[in-house]
Amino acid sequence: MTKPLLQMALDSTDIDTAFESVSRVAEQLDVIEVGTILAFAEGMSCVAKMRKKYPNHIIVCDMKVTDASAILTKLALEAGANWVTVSAAAHIETIKAAKKIADQHQGDIQIELYGHWTLEDARAWYDMGVTQAIYHRSRDAELAGVSWTDQDLNKMQKLSDIGIELSITGGIEPADLSLFKHIKVKAFIAGRALASDKGLVVAGSFHNEISKFW
Amino acid sequence: MTKPLLQMALDSTDIDTAFESVSRVAEQLDVIEVGTILAFAEGMSCVAKMRKKYPNHIIVCDMKVTDASAILTKLALEAGANWVTVSAAAHIETIKAAKKIADQHQGDIQIELYGHWTLEDARAWYDMGVTQAIYHRSRDAELAGVSWTDQDLNKMQKLSDIGIELSITGGIEPADLSLFKHIKVKAFIAGRALASDKGLVVAGSFHNEISKFW
Repeated sequence: MTKPLLQMALDSTDIDTAFESVSRVAEQLDVIEVGTILAFAEGMSCVAKMRKKYPNHIIVCDMKVTDASAILTKLALEAGANWVTVSAAAHIETIKAAKKIADQHQGDIQIELYGHWTLEDARAWYDMGVTQAIYHRSRDAELAGVSWTDQDLNKMQKLSDIGIELSITGGIEPADLSLFKHIKVKAFIAGRALASDKGLVVAGSFHNEISKFW
Repeated sequence: MTKPLLQMALDSTDIDTAFESVSRVAEQLDVIEVGTILAFAEGMSCVAKMRKKYPNHIIVCDMKVTDASAILTKLALEAGANWVTVSAAAHIETIKAAKKIADQHQGDIQIELYGHWTLEDARAWYDMGVTQAIYHRSRDAELAGVSWTDQDLNKMQKLSDIGIELSITGGIEPADLSLFKHIKVKAFIAGRALASDKGLVVAGSFHNEISKFW
């Protein structure tokens, strides 16, 4: 199994705060995420600025595309993103159109697993060429202060068995990583933990745990 | 039943094209929609510019919010939008948080009906205070060149019976309006038809049909 990447989600409402957050840990990151908030606040110019500042990182634009996928995917990729997120609630034809544009740009799409998606959906995505999805810890669990549930892990395992690589997010901490050792993990996504004063230490801990289990 | 409004969706990738499209028919419109494409392309400054140019229209920002709803809703409403769209795939707590922010700003949210939503979801939204949703003609039907199906109309009637007002979209034409006369319609949404050379005529036809049936 390939080694999971470390991804930082940037969800400020302005690019300067985002730059400040990412600059402290950039060398420890594989993937920089222009979050939905930042993308909507500043528009695609923030993706272009991020690409200019970080020419060698993978950049993902978290658009959660639900419709008009060809145009939105093109906007993000032409601004400098490598990957664009697409909502699991999008129609299969919408997902197909996004994938086609991504392929043309040597980019990729990632399915954001929100709403009542099914394993049948997941198989249809995979059959169409989709190999990436983003798994969020269930909001109920997060709100209830519960860690990763067996239900979460079972769903992840099933997606992984289909062949889909997962980027995992939702208050994830280095100590959690061993939970996912049997899953095809594309990236672990953290935000606030990496933006804190202890960001570099946290990034180091993520890499240590990744080396231990992958 | 209150009279349906006429809404124009602006889905260009730049604000100047959007201004050009809307200026020709603005006096005939009740609602101006800053589409997802425009919002992502230019950021929230385009909502602020639209509000400055059109101080008296209802402005909706089509964010299709799926997560981080409090911040996203606040961004759009503070930029000058009255309404923000929220994805049906969003967690119920996410929708609740968006509604709360909207209420604080004398604004409103509209549920975008994508993905595998259920009538049980719709009742939960309504019970929480949501009164608006956006119904898209099924993509399969649109791709197949089929008009509004009985299945579409049945779903709309059921949502309407729950108490949810619908904004209806998906290649809608004035001649279609009679189909919806038993449904609580908040707005009819058109884009390209209103942006064409014949935009004013089309807008007039929408208003004629609305007067006929409501």
